Amino acid sequence: MDPDEFRRRGYEMVDWVADYLANVAEYPVNSHVEPGAIRDALPAAAPEHPEPFVDVMRDLDGIIMPGVTHWQSPSWFAYFPANSSGPSLLGEMAAAGLGVQGMLWSTSPAATELETVVVDWFVDLLGLPEEWKTTGPGGGVIQMSASDSSLVALVTAREVATQHAPLDKLVVYASDQTHSSVEKGARIAGFSHVRIIPTDAEYAMDPGALASQIAADRADGLHPAFVAISIGTTATTAVDPVRAIATIARENDMWAHVDAAYAGSAMICPEFRRHQDGLELVDSYTFNPHKWMFTNFDCNLYYVADRRPLLDAMSILPPYLRNEATLSGKVIDYRDWHVPLGRRFRSLKLWFVLRHYGAEGIRYHIREHIQLTQDLAMRLNNDPRFEVVAPHPFGLVVFRHVDGNEATTDLANRLNASGRVAVTPTTLGEQSAIRVSIGQTTTSSTHVNALWEMIDNAGDGTDI
Amino acid sequence: MDPDEFRRRGYEMVDWVADYLANVAEYPVNSHVEPGAIRDALPAAAPEHPEPFVDVMRDLDGIIMPGVTHWQSPSWFAYFPANSSGPSLLGEMAAAGLGVQGMLWSTSPAATELETVVVDWFVDLLGLPEEWKTTGPGGGVIQMSASDSSLVALVTAREVATQHAPLDKLVVYASDQTHSSVEKGARIAGFSHVRIIPTDAEYAMDPGALASQIAADRADGLHPAFVAISIGTTATTAVDPVRAIATIARENDMWAHVDAAYAGSAMICPEFRRHQDGLELVDSYTFNPHKWMFTNFDCNLYYVADRRPLLDAMSILPPYLRNEATLSGKVIDYRDWHVPLGRRFRSLKLWFVLRHYGAEGIRYHIREHIQLTQDLAMRLNNDPRFEVVAPHPFGLVVFRHVDGNEATTDLANRLNASGRVAVTPTTLGEQSAIRVSIGQTTTSSTHVNALWEMIDNAGDGTDI
Repeated sequence: MDPDEFRRRGYEMVDWVADYLANVAEYPVNSHVEPGAIRDALPAAAPEHPEPFVDVMRDLDGIIMPGVTHWQSPSWFAYFPANSSGPSLLGEMAAAGLGVQGMLWSTSPAATELETVVVDWFVDLLGLPEEWKTTGPGGGVIQMSASDSSLVALVTAREVATQHAPLDKLVVYASDQTHSSVEKGARIAGFSHVRIIPTDAEYAMDPGALASQIAADRADGLHPAFVAISIGTTATTAVDPVRAIATIARENDMWAHVDAAYAGSAMICPEFRRHQDGLELVDSYTFNPHKWMFTNFDCNLYYVADRRPLLDAMSILPPYLRNEATLSGKVIDYRDWHVPLGRRFRSLKLWFVLRHYGAEGIRYHIREHIQLTQDLAMRLNNDPRFEVVAPHPFGLVVFRHVDGNEATTDLANRLNASGRVAVTPTTLGEQSAIRVSIGQTTTSSTHVNALWEMIDNAGDGTDI
Repeated sequence: MDPDEFRRRGYEMVDWVADYLANVAEYPVNSHVEPGAIRDALPAAAPEHPEPFVDVMRDLDGIIMPGVTHWQSPSWFAYFPANSSGPSLLGEMAAAGLGVQGMLWSTSPAATELETVVVDWFVDLLGLPEEWKTTGPGGGVIQMSASDSSLVALVTAREVATQHAPLDKLVVYASDQTHSSVEKGARIAGFSHVRIIPTDAEYAMDPGALASQIAADRADGLHPAFVAISIGTTATTAVDPVRAIATIARENDMWAHVDAAYAGSAMICPEFRRHQDGLELVDSYTFNPHKWMFTNFDCNLYYVADRRPLLDAMSILPPYLRNEATLSGKVIDYRDWHVPLGRRFRSLKLWFVLRHYGAEGIRYHIREHIQLTQDLAMRLNNDPRFEVVAPHPFGLVVFRHVDGNEATTDLANRLNASGRVAVTPTTLGEQSAIRVSIGQTTTSSTHVNALWEMIDNAGDGTDI
């Protein structure tokens, strides 16, 4: 396809995306295809001969779209948002068009340097410790997902700790609300001991229980090595007491890693920063602009307070990657900051987003989402049929039907089956509950009011 | 940015990309900015207020572009290609626009099912073992990079082997030409023993040396667990003897993993499949459509012969990810096939590429690249000033100046400093050498002839 044909088809695709975004509110939010339906509609073998582009677009609409779940719908209240925006899509197009591989500074200096600038900007934007800037001992890097960042944190912590104790003596600590990626990362990194610390009535890790478990493990000859601290858990957006846990970690020479994958975006508003008090005591931190900052997946930020142990754990320099710039020590090679070698020019879309919205624009939307969430929580709290089951400091409210698990699950299923909204049925301990996450780019009071009406009707058993 | 503004800006961005691709041959291939130049040209803080889109585009051209190295240039002969194409970029736009999160089947069924169809197509396209299809005991998945796939293979192998021996007794084997991602992956997975097996005169792993090392390790009470087999090494595209090594691995109950990251694309042409003879004996395999199959980064395929140990190693199911489809066992949840939880709709761009080119179109371009490489190798071989230092079965030729290391390095530096081409200076053992990789989408005989003329002139010490 030559550049001129790409130009024509590109306009068509921009129209397709623009029309999709203009009409996404009209689609059934969850796809209701049966397992295997899309697979069965596609041929069993790849095409031998070239096919006209119109046929591809026809099948995109006819075969693929019925199987798409509409994460960009303003009535997307499921999981967490994976929101997006025009400037992000445009930055993504530019990055794909350039097609550079930013594995080393020298393989495209702008890809590295824009990334450095943007991750340093975020230190100020989110009120993170100044030492995490690249100009200090720390630094940030863009990765694919918070799972990748937690894995890197775990591996770095393991390398530090195995200087004092063998791997099979090391212990990882997480709460019963910590994201599953920490347990998965611990398994991948080869840890054999993962302790699950109980949480309090607000689903925050109990520092006293952590300290006791650490003491018990020490008494058993084990070596506490890593603790995961959540700012905004997946189940309820609970906030662990960062300062208390990080202090315990310091006293015990452990690595403290903060997972703020979802809630990190809220820290662009100073009024929420009390939830991250104590960050100057932690070793690493991660948050996802691709969740709630108008930047399409994938875009994850990972910071360390001290980059040396990270580089010690991740650097390998074979002959085919040696180059003058790397050997000079004057540049950053971000391949040494994570697992993969190859890297997209991901900072470009984040830069487009920051410049289009400005910090004040992002704050405006985040605050609006949080306000809509608080309003919905109040309605639920004021209604005797429903019960809000956890604090809701950000854009998520979790509630249940007072009639119990069956009524709650039934309500969630009816909401999802309507095609008009998507929510996430879950369980908290023994209780069924419904997660409503408000953070899609175009979600407004209209959509939240419509959701409330459906809950209100369904809660009575009447049609939604 | 509402859909109408996105439409307008989207046309502008399509024009920008189309113009870039039309003119990319005119840019100096390597960026020659000084370290820090791009960083210094950008503000120290993020914008507080929204900025006009024209300002962003102005800075993209004025600040970012001088720091871009042009991987999409037809005169890109460095590293390996990271080639791309119109249909790939269009598929990427569609995927970004939809913005779905394909972590579970239920979170967007089409994202999972198209991926299954496409990875199964590739089993036939590349002549891989039929058992690797999802309908058999194996299966494929799309990941970000070959580093990620090698890590997953190493972790799975570790989980299998630790049923028989402790981690600190396990041994990983690779050749002195194996990609650095295997050593890095072994370190991340916590292996403490990595044996580097010597290669023969053609840079292929010596199976006899492997067998001897395994026997010696067994005699020392260690437990051989994993061997990496390369089809197309990074330094020279050498091919390890798959059948011989995989047979040794089977005899020793070891995991055999094939890294065909670059050369896998060539297997779409049946005449190159002799290089992968023995694949039915291996446990896992990876190749990168994002290198040499007209699919923009990132897009890596990972196959296993038996998916059970992979799923045993990678599955974790917290309450917020439980859903009817997953519990029914009728669907695939690809998050259980790799490290990260979130996933892009990457199969879309690969599907666009396959339909646009058809298998025959891809074969045509791959064969052309390989022919151009063979022609250049012949010219170098026929010229007494140069020496081709390794076999060149695919699209890479590695050569040196007969006057020695200094003359070779000087030649590479002069080629790169010209701005008209990019090549990779490297070392093979004690010898300096130059890698010329021919595989960019638009590279033709014109560009390779121009490169040869430059080598010809520079080889004499005259101006290039």
